[in-house]
Amino acid sequence: MNENVIYIGSKPVMNYVLAVVTQMGGDTEEVFLKARGRAISKAVDVAEIVRNKFLPESDVGSIEISTEEITNNEGVKINVSTIEIQIVKD
Amino acid sequence: MNENVIYIGSKPVMNYVLAVVTQMGGDTEEVFLKARGRAISKAVDVAEIVRNKFLPESDVGSIEISTEEITNNEGVKINVSTIEIQIVKD
Repeated sequence: MNENVIYIGSKPVMNYVLAVVTQMGGDTEEVFLKARGRAISKAVDVAEIVRNKFLPESDVGSIEISTEEITNNEGVKINVSTIEIQIVKD
Repeated sequence: MNENVIYIGSKPVMNYVLAVVTQMGGDTEEVFLKARGRAISKAVDVAEIVRNKFLPESDVGSIEISTEEITNNEGVKINVSTIEIQIVKD
């Protein structure tokens, strides 16, 4: 299985939508969107826009949430929520 | 089935965590967290904090994402992403 992962960060939503559409234009059968913290909402936007507007033949597969421990700018360890959304071809 | 829904909005995360813990303290077997737009990240935080810190006997069940059409303050219809996270007792 070729795992295609797109990390959702601070760029505009449409940048990530385009990345998914591009990756799934070929032989790729699935893409994973990964996001942490406030970018989680954006990852959901990307998944919804892709399946509703750009790739009607795709759909959301599994959705998993988790917690990661990261070290912030002050060197303090904090917990941050994560999400992983699988987008698959129907 | 008694559907217990907690809507995640602009209050602090711990308010919603407390609401879940309170609801699941009794006979309730499941609670649904619902959020839209930017509150989606907070809903994931609530689910993660509940299962990791407060209710180790609970876990995340189904997670569903969708799109709703809402009318904004200027009367314009816009699409907003939504999430629904089920929390269940093990």
